Parts: sequence; C-alpha cells; structure tokens
Amino acid sequence: MKRFIHLGLAATAITVLPQLGFAQEAAETEAAAPGFDEIGPYIMTTLLFCMAGFLVFFMAAGFAMLEGGLVRSKNVTMQMTKNIALFSIAAIMYWLVGFNTMYPGDFNGYFAIGGQTVLDPVGVAAADAALDYASVGSDFFFQLVFVAATASIVSGALAERIKLWPFLIFVVILTGFMYPISGSWKWGAGWLDAAGFQDFAGSTVVHSVGGWAALAGAIVLGPRLGKYGKDGKVTPMPGSNLALATLGTFILWLGWFGFNGGSQLAMGTVGDVSDVSRIFANTNMAAAAGAVTALILSQVMYKKPDLTMVLNGALAGLVSITAEPLAPTLFGALWIGAVGGVIVVLTIPMLDKLKIDDVVGAVPVHLFAGIWGTIAVIFYNGDANLITQLTGIVAYGVFTFVASLIIWFILKAVMGIRVGEEEEIAGLDMSELGMEAYPEFSKG
Amino acid sequence: MKRFIHLGLAATAITVLPQLGFAQEAAETEAAAPGFDEIGPYIMTTLLFCMAGFLVFFMAAGFAMLEGGLVRSKNVTMQMTKNIALFSIAAIMYWLVGFNTMYPGDFNGYFAIGGQTVLDPVGVAAADAALDYASVGSDFFFQLVFVAATASIVSGALAERIKLWPFLIFVVILTGFMYPISGSWKWGAGWLDAAGFQDFAGSTVVHSVGGWAALAGAIVLGPRLGKYGKDGKVTPMPGSNLALATLGTFILWLGWFGFNGGSQLAMGTVGDVSDVSRIFANTNMAAAAGAVTALILSQVMYKKPDLTMVLNGALAGLVSITAEPLAPTLFGALWIGAVGGVIVVLTIPMLDKLKIDDVVGAVPVHLFAGIWGTIAVIFYNGDANLITQLTGIVAYGVFTFVASLIIWFILKAVMGIRVGEEEEIAGLDMSELGMEAYPEFSKG
Amino acid sequence: MKRFIHLGLAATAITVLPQLGFAQEAAETEAAAPGFDEIGPYIMTTLLFCMAGFLVFFMAAGFAMLEGGLVRSKNVTMQMTKNIALFSIAAIMYWLVGFNTMYPGDFNGYFAIGGQTVLDPVGVAAADAALDYASVGSDFFFQLVFVAATASIVSGALAERIKLWPFLIFVVILTGFMYPISGSWKWGAGWLDAAGFQDFAGSTVVHSVGGWAALAGAIVLGPRLGKYGKDGKVTPMPGSNLALATLGTFILWLGWFGFNGGSQLAMGTVGDVSDVSRIFANTNMAAAAGAVTALILSQVMYKKPDLTMVLNGALAGLVSITAEPLAPTLFGALWIGAVGGVIVVLTIPMLDKLKIDDVVGAVPVHLFAGIWGTIAVIFYNGDANLITQLTGIVAYGVFTFVASLIIWFILKAVMGIRVGEEEEIAGLDMSELGMEAYPEFSKG
Repeated sequence: MKRFIHLGLAATAITVLPQLGFAQEAAETEAAAPGFDEIGPYIMTTLLFCMAGFLVFFMAAGFAMLEGGLVRSKNVTMQMTKNIALFSIAAIMYWLVGFNTMYPGDFNGYFAIGGQTVLDPVGVAAADAALDYASVGSDFFFQLVFVAATASIVSGALAERIKLWPFLIFVVILTGFMYPISGSWKWGAGWLDAAGFQDFAGSTVVHSVGGWAALAGAIVLGPRLGKYGKDGKVTPMPGSNLALATLGTFILWLGWFGFNGGSQLAMGTVGDVSDVSRIFANTNMAAAAGAVTALILSQVMYKKPDLTMVLNGALAGLVSITAEPLAPTLFGALWIGAVGGVIVVLTIPMLDKLKIDDVVGAVPVHLFAGIWGTIAVIFYNGDANLITQLTGIVAYGVFTFVASLIIWFILKAVMGIRVGEEEEIAGLDMSELGMEAYPEFSKG
Repeated sequence: MKRFIHLGLAATAITVLPQLGFAQEAAETEAAAPGFDEIGPYIMTTLLFCMAGFLVFFMAAGFAMLEGGLVRSKNVTMQMTKNIALFSIAAIMYWLVGFNTMYPGDFNGYFAIGGQTVLDPVGVAAADAALDYASVGSDFFFQLVFVAATASIVSGALAERIKLWPFLIFVVILTGFMYPISGSWKWGAGWLDAAGFQDFAGSTVVHSVGGWAALAGAIVLGPRLGKYGKDGKVTPMPGSNLALATLGTFILWLGWFGFNGGSQLAMGTVGDVSDVSRIFANTNMAAAAGAVTALILSQVMYKKPDLTMVLNGALAGLVSITAEPLAPTLFGALWIGAVGGVIVVLTIPMLDKLKIDDVVGAVPVHLFAGIWGTIAVIFYNGDANLITQLTGIVAYGVFTFVASLIIWFILKAVMGIRVGEEEEIAGLDMSELGMEAYPEFSKG
Repeated sequence: MKRFIHLGLAATAITVLPQLGFAQEAAETEAAAPGFDEIGPYIMTTLLFCMAGFLVFFMAAGFAMLEGGLVRSKNVTMQMTKNIALFSIAAIMYWLVGFNTMYPGDFNGYFAIGGQTVLDPVGVAAADAALDYASVGSDFFFQLVFVAATASIVSGALAERIKLWPFLIFVVILTGFMYPISGSWKWGAGWLDAAGFQDFAGSTVVHSVGGWAALAGAIVLGPRLGKYGKDGKVTPMPGSNLALATLGTFILWLGWFGFNGGSQLAMGTVGDVSDVSRIFANTNMAAAAGAVTALILSQVMYKKPDLTMVLNGALAGLVSITAEPLAPTLFGALWIGAVGGVIVVLTIPMLDKLKIDDVVGAVPVHLFAGIWGTIAVIFYNGDANLITQLTGIVAYGVFTFVASLIIWFILKAVMGIRVGEEEEIAGLDMSELGMEAYPEFSKG
C-alpha cells in the first residue's frame, strides 16, 4: 500500500451539475453541505488513523510487558525504563526529523532531512484539507507509533547487559534517521516503491529493520555472562514472569489490528472498509496459526509444549502476514502464519548455536519471520515478484545492519555500551538504577 | 437481535427519480457517488464489527489474566498456555467449520457443516457488497471472537488439574461444532429464533453454553486434591496474584462494550448508533451494580469485603445484562446487574457444598448469572415471554451439558483427562511444561 | 470546549429547496433518506463518545495497576478493591445525581440536584434526536468515565493506611455531588464558563479537583507509620511491582487519547475530526516530553534515572496538556509537557519535606501539573487570559479543598478514617480483607 502523502493536493470533489439555473442552485446547496462522497472518506480515514494509532501505541505496553516478563527480575526496572523512554524519544525524534524525512513533500529519491512536522490548522476547513487522504495530525500520529515498534525490538534483544544511555542514543539515531531514511525508500515513494517492492504494513520496513538493528547490537554487545559455556552448553535463563509475557503478547496481537488494518490508509468507501475488515480477519488467522504451529512443534520436538515458543509463534505469525495482510485468503493467512511459527521454533536454538544472545527471541520473530513474510507476498499479490522482494530485503538488510554495526561500534568505543561484570551479575536494576522492580519478593 | 446473514443479498439502494431527462442525469450522478444513506450503514456497521471485534478479542487476555491470577503460582504457565492456545484453536476451527455451521446460507433449521469461510474480494465494489449489513470479513471476525469466550470459561473452571491436550481437544469440538450448532438455533435463524427466544448478545448462547461445558467437565474431572476434606471442610486455595485477576476483570469489562455493543449489528443510522451507546451505558451500569452488590453482600455475610467476590460480581453483572442490554432503562440495568452480583456471592459457596470444584467461579458467573440474564429479558423486552426463555435455557442446557458429559467421558476413557497426583501436587507448570511462571519468587 | 448539552433541541436540518414541484419532490426524497450533512455529525460524535468512553473507562484499570504497583505488597488487595469499588460507585452516583447536577437542563448557575439520567428511547428517530450533538447514552457514558478518574486520584494518595468504607463514603460524595457541582461551573455552562475560563478536557475540572481532594485527605489522615523520622529523615517505601506500575502508566496514556480527544465533543465534520487527530498528536507529544524530561532531570539531580519519576513525568505531561490539547503546536505540546515533567521531579520531594505523605505522587501529577496546564492555556488559546484562569484555579481549589477537609474531618470524627497501628504494620490486606494479593511470594 502506497503511503506517500499528497501534500498540497486540495480537494476538488464538488461535482458541477449542468449549467441550468436550477441545477446551479442545487450545486450551491451541495457546496454548502458537502455530501459523504466528498468529505466522508477524509473523515473515516482520519478516524481510522486515530483508532489504529491508539492500538499501535498500546503495542509499546505490549513490548514492555513481553520483555519485562522474559528478563530476570533483577533487570525488570531497567527494561521498563528503556521501553517507556524509547517510545518517548521516538515520538520526539519522529516529529523533529523523522516524519518529514520519510514523507518529504519534495521527494529526492533517497532521503531528506526536514524540519518539524506542522499539523493542519485548528478547525481546518474542507477546502483546505487533503480530502483525498486524511488530516496531517492523524497521519503523523499513525506513522509515529510505528517507528517506536522498531526500537522496541532492539530493546528486547539487547536486554540484561546494555547500558541505558548508549541504548537511548541508538534509539535517537534509529528513530530519527535510520528508520525514516530507509522507510522512505518504500513508503515515501522512493526507489524501492518505484521498483515495485511490496510491503503493506512493514514486515521489512518496520520489523526486519528492528531485527537487523537488534542483530548488529547483539553481535557487538556479546552474550550475557554465563549464557554460553566453553563446552557449547547453553544455560537457560528463564524469564521472571510468564504471565506478564503472555499479557504482552496479547497486547501486541491487539495492537496489530491497528498496525495492519490502519495500513489500508483509507476507510471511507465500501471497498476500503471491507479491506480493513479483511485485514483484521487475516491478521488474526496468521497469529492463531503461528501459535498453534509453535505449540505442536514444541511438543513434537521437545516432548513438552513451550509457552515462550507459543507466544513467539503468535508474534511470528503476525510479523509474517504484515507484508501482505490484505490479498491472501484466510487459508493463505493460515499457512503463511504457520510457517512463521515454524521459523521461530527452528531458529531460536540456531541463534544460540551461533552464540548470539537474543534475550526475547526478537531476531527470529521480527527479522526471520519478517523476511519470510516479505517473500510470501508473491503468493497472493500479483504485483509482487520474487526478485524485487529479495532486492528490498537485501537493501534494508545491508543498510540497517551496516549502519547499526557502525553506530554500535562507535558507541562502544566512545562511551562503552555494556555494564561491568559485577553490575551485570547484580542486575541492572540495582547497579544502574538503584531500584528493584519486585523489592519484596525474595529470589529463590 | 437477529444475527442471520443475508447472504447473496446484493444492495439495491439506488433510488430512481422520476423519468425526466434532468432527473435521470441527477440519478446517474448519484449512482456514481452513492450517498450516505446507501453506503453509510455498511461502512459504519463494518467499522462497528472491527472495533467491537478487537475489544472482544482482548477479552482473551482478560480471561487469561483473571484465571492466571486466581490459580496458584505452580499452575500459571499452564493457564497461560491454555488460554492462548484455546483462542488460536477457536480461530481456526471457527473458520474451518464453525462460522458456516452457525450462519449457513441455506439454513436447515438445526445445523449444517459448511466449508471454510470465504471473505469478500479485495476492494469489493458497492454493487457486490451486502449493503444492508456489513462485510463478511468484519462479521466473521466479530463472531469468531465470541466463540473463544466460551472456551475460556471452561478453561477457568477446570484449572490446576486437567491435562493440556485433552482440554484442547475439547476446545476443538466446542468451538468447531457444539457452539456453532446450538448457536445457530438462535443467531442462525433456527428454531429458537423462530419460536421468539430472545438473547441479544449471548447470556445463554455464549455464557451459559460455556458454563454448562465447564460444569460437565468439573463433575467428570473431580475436585483438586485436598480441596474438600472428608469432614465437609473446604480448604481455600487462594489465587497467586490478585492484581493480575483485577486487571483481567477490567479487561473483560472493557471487552464487554464490544461484546454487547457490537451485537446491535448496525451503527449507520441515528437509531442504531444511539442504541449502541445505550448498550454501552447499560452494560457499564450492570457491571458497576454487580460489583457494588457483591462488595456489600460479602461485607454483610463474611464481615470482610472479598475482592474475588467483587471481581466476580462485576462479571456476573455483565453476564446478566448480556441477554438484553438495549431495552432496559439504566435503573433496569442496575437491578438486573445487582441480582447477578447476589447470585455469585450466594452460589459460589453452594458449589463447594456440592463438592464441585470450579477454580475461578466460572459456573456461578457465566451459567447461573447467564440463566438469570436470559430470564430478566422478559422485564424490558416486550417480545420475550417466560416460557420461551425457559425453553431456550433448557434446550441449550440439555444439549451442551449432555454433549459435554459424553465428550469428557470419552476423553477420560481414551486418553485420561487428569494429571497424576504427584504432578498435581508439583503443579502443572513443572510436571507438564517444565517451565515455571515465576521461577525466581520463592514460595512461602 | 463547551460541554453544555442542548436539551430539547430537535434537529431542523432538512434544507427546503425552492418551491418548484420538481424540487419539492427532491426534497421529499431527501427527507426520506437524510444526507450525511444532516445525520453524519450525530452518528460520528456518538461514535466518538463511545470510543473515547471505553478508552477513558480503561483508565480505571490504569490507575489500579499504577497504584497497585506503587504500594507495598501487603496493601495490594486493598488497592484493587478500592479501585474497582470506586469506579462502580462513581457509575451509580453519577447516574443518580451527578450527570443532571453537572448538566442541568434548566441551569441555575451554580448547581441543581437532578433525578436519575434518562436515555434516548430505543431506536430513537432522527426527528427526536439532538442531531446537533450526540445521543444521551453516549454523552452520559463519556462524562461518567471522567468522574471516576477524580476518585482514582484520591485513592492513590491515601493508600496504605485509610480504611475502606470511609474512603468509599468520600467517593460517594465526591462523585455524586462535589465534582458535578464544581464541574457545572465550567462544563455545565455555569459562571466560570460565562467568565471565559478555559479548560478543554479538565486539567482543573477533573485532575486538580482530584488532587485537592487527595491533598486534604493526606493532611487529615497523616503520613504512614515510619515514613518521616523525627530527624527529618524520609524513609523510602518502594512500590512492590514496578512492571505493574509501568503497565498502569501505559494504560493511562492510552486512555488519555479518549480523555482529550473525546473532549472535542464532535467528530462529524472535516474540521472536527482533524481537531480530534490534532489532539491525539499533541497529547502524545506532551506525555513523551514529560517522560523524557523526568528521565534526564532525575539523572542530573540524583545521578540515576528514576523509573517512578519517568512514569509520573509522562502522567504530568498528560495532565499539563489536558486543559488545552487542541490549540498548541506540536512544539507547544512538547514544552508544556516538559514543564509538567519538571514540576513532578521537583515537587515530589517537596511534599515529603512538608511531611505530606502522597503514596503515588498523585498531588504533584494531578494538582500541580493540573494548575500548570490550566495556566499554560493562555499561551496558545487566544480566548484565555491569566486572571480568569487563575480565578478558576482558585475557585476549584477553595471549594474542593475546603469541602474535602470538612468531609474528611467529619468522617474521622464519626467513624475514624485510619486503620490501627497494628493493622497498618500488618498491611491492610490481611487486617481489613483477610486476603493477600501475592500469598505465595515470600517477603524478603
């Protein structure tokens, strides 16, 4: 779905009737009271962005709870601090540079650093509004909440050992510059959009980007102390609160209706609102299929169902359908999501073999399933072809991974990105923040 | 409210003006740009289903948190696993057979096994859409999230001792066959609908059905070890996390606005949107009245207010108003909900006397208050009469209870439904899943 | 934004065309199928109130989680009980007297005790509906969920030592009488509205009122045992669950989109829906700015970032923008919210110096930031002036603080408002309710 904003395109919807005196009068009446065909789409799409926007906003809470539940209790306060801080920083950076970089009015094909975003005037008149789209405020809000998701992905992977401030500096760069620049390639009508690359709601543009940045960070940062033994033994470090992690997953699932549904970018016609609902149904199906697949596969492979795999399976199903939640049939959504569930169950142990320590499974869920979802577009969307999809995947991967590596190395050199060994063993909550998340619950 | 889908009824909304050349031209203009009276109801109702649908979806999280908070910590991972798995299974089964069984195009009066659900084509044209209703995708999504609620009710009652896989097999049957078959009696324009049975949003069709299935399961399964002593003594087994249980209740309350409000099945006229809002106000009032009543009654009866009673009182108020959330005045909603609160406080101990172990109080809340709500319809809905309401209550009860008993007995005979004594004492989390929900919090 | 309800104003929207036979016929057709200009605003605004209403409802869960996370574990069950009870009581009182007191049909300038609220009839016809506004049900629901916020603020400040029933009696008076009476001064078209006082969504009308009532209660009640030593030493009493407190903050942030966005009170025109979206964007920006400011300031002042300060910073940003979320630019929202964050970080220790024990920081967040937000209106809203804003702030302060003091003193004299020392040390959960929130997690 094309996300480019038609800036400055004022509405010209008033149908002129034949030049009869009588008709003229009717036309004037109509002008005074514009019909649904004129202003309805604008109103409904603006509403869609507000509604989808608050759902996607809530994903920030979902990521926080998921990550807070999957880290050990000594790092929960830090994980909460990072999540609320990263959302807030993303909101400010995206206003300051991101939005105008991603959707520049005078697009240069790659990127453009804009000024701060300017909203429509209060009580904007129909004549001054972009009646073929939606209000700037709603569009800005909807795009803003997307960028925070990218940063949340990084936060989960690098948990339990990264320092707060270097992480937040990375968030500044990611949300203010990296994501908007690469995002503009597709959603800002840039070169990948021109090439025919398809990514409806961001399997690549959002999720893979977050995954690549997380992967680079995990490599530079190194694994947690004691995670990988010299003999190749992997020490499990179970999450401290699986109820919280489950809540987080449900919240993310909820938010995804906004993430994918809002990416229809229109709700004011019969076709558009039906498409939004179609996206809801497909999104739900893919999540369900991912969860069930991970449940069965973890039973088969490990003889015991694994809740964290089920949670990540649902999320992988969601990521998988995000590149094309509209075109598939419900059966299509089912098998695309199911493959996502398989990917997660198979690749989470694989990362451990490579001694890449991704605390919450963010790379399998967002990067690997994101790549899969971007490829899967070709099965149901006739405008997509494999070469272009792979081109997009590689372009986003190279740019984000290399840029992230560079930034992580610079941060490491300049200020250090990892807490000391003692601090890590004591937990970031006490050593970095002086505040425990569960001060009264004694540790077993 | 009739839920039967008018399949194949294409829109015929274009009003033909008198055959004057001028008017003809106007009519053509109108055809090119259909007015709000033609497409508005479809757009708004589709939006209603999407919005109400995501709210009802979130009830899955509500049930998970409520149940996770009310079981002991050694069974929390299992409760989370069951809840995310049951929702996912329900989503797949309802697509595969449920939806078409419940709302068959060529209805046979009792049931019909259909094929998988087919959505409207992408970008459906107004001429091909069911303009008198809503998109198939939105309707499917909205109905789908209802069925999961039924399974969640069962999950809560049977917690802490049932094996995972037999439970999930029951969910397959309940959501794919039992609920859709009996649901079609009323919402599929079946025999109870023809008889005049009234159940607006499902006090009986959803909540009692879940309650009957739970009751049958609790009887076949037997109580938890140590719950009932030989001397008639009932050992309290307090929930491990009342903050989580409270969160779950608030989420369910939130979701209920979608559950009842969406069941208006229309939002595109002044009357319909006002009715939706009326339902919101009544639903909220019934919940509030149920909570306050349970608070006061538990103070009077036990000298101490009981939070779990208050939570269940709110839920019982919600279940009670679900059969008729539209017609009552706010005062009507208040007293109907209050009676629900009384029912819960009085019947939870009653079940214990019968040595039926319902871990979270699901049977009092969903079955007993559901029966009450179905009867209470007669006080405000002139189309309802007591005999028909009782007929419906008995029909759903006999069918669901007997079918559930049979299935539970078969599952028990074939594969066993209960974990061993050692496993139960150790907790299902470690024995069945090998994963604790709160591994670091030592048990007092 | 004026909130006065135009009672009895039936719609008069049918535009009469010139008296030609032909036009007459067209007009009749139009009467049979009213256009979007006639019924669209009513439908969209009613939807806005339903949607914003369920978001604001969910703030009750947000307050419960925030407070439950910030109290010690021995008082969590009590905090949950208070929060669900206060919402329920508010719902009943606001129906019984509050709504009609706040928005009386025949307004007397100060207050009027009305009877219970009466909803529109089921399936109200367009001719009988207030087509220039919204359905009574939606408006009632939206206003109702606001009043509960006020009571939640009090609940947080007085936690860990107040008895349940005196607190709930105060809630009855606050939600049924105090809030509606003072609320009518502005939103009921009372004297402050006539004087030009501006408070869009309630920095003063809702948040300061809650803050004043909380402050009066905290003074009368006294600090928790051991909080303030004789040597001026302040003993920190850290919250028991910062993950829960973070979740609560995110839920409140989510709900605030409804709180401020719904206060536009209209969504059916291009200008109105754009304004709603503008409010969303500004609200989000103020919260982000408050959080980031508190993060940086706590780092600078205490050398360690303080998560509870960040959470309260976000909330203070939200309160600060609530009096005028529409008019400011995004930069305006940023700096107004940032000042809110500064206020919280600076005034929380100040209250401790005054030995006023506000457990969750409710007074700084809701009262101090509320005053700031009410003053800040003058920078972007040309209709506001400092004198009138200060007049409103003082009027609400004097009325609410004095009335609250009197009520708290009466309650103290008549029935006592504070639990005994032993009970306080043991925790309210066991002593007052006989039920622990986390019975299995041993206390360190």
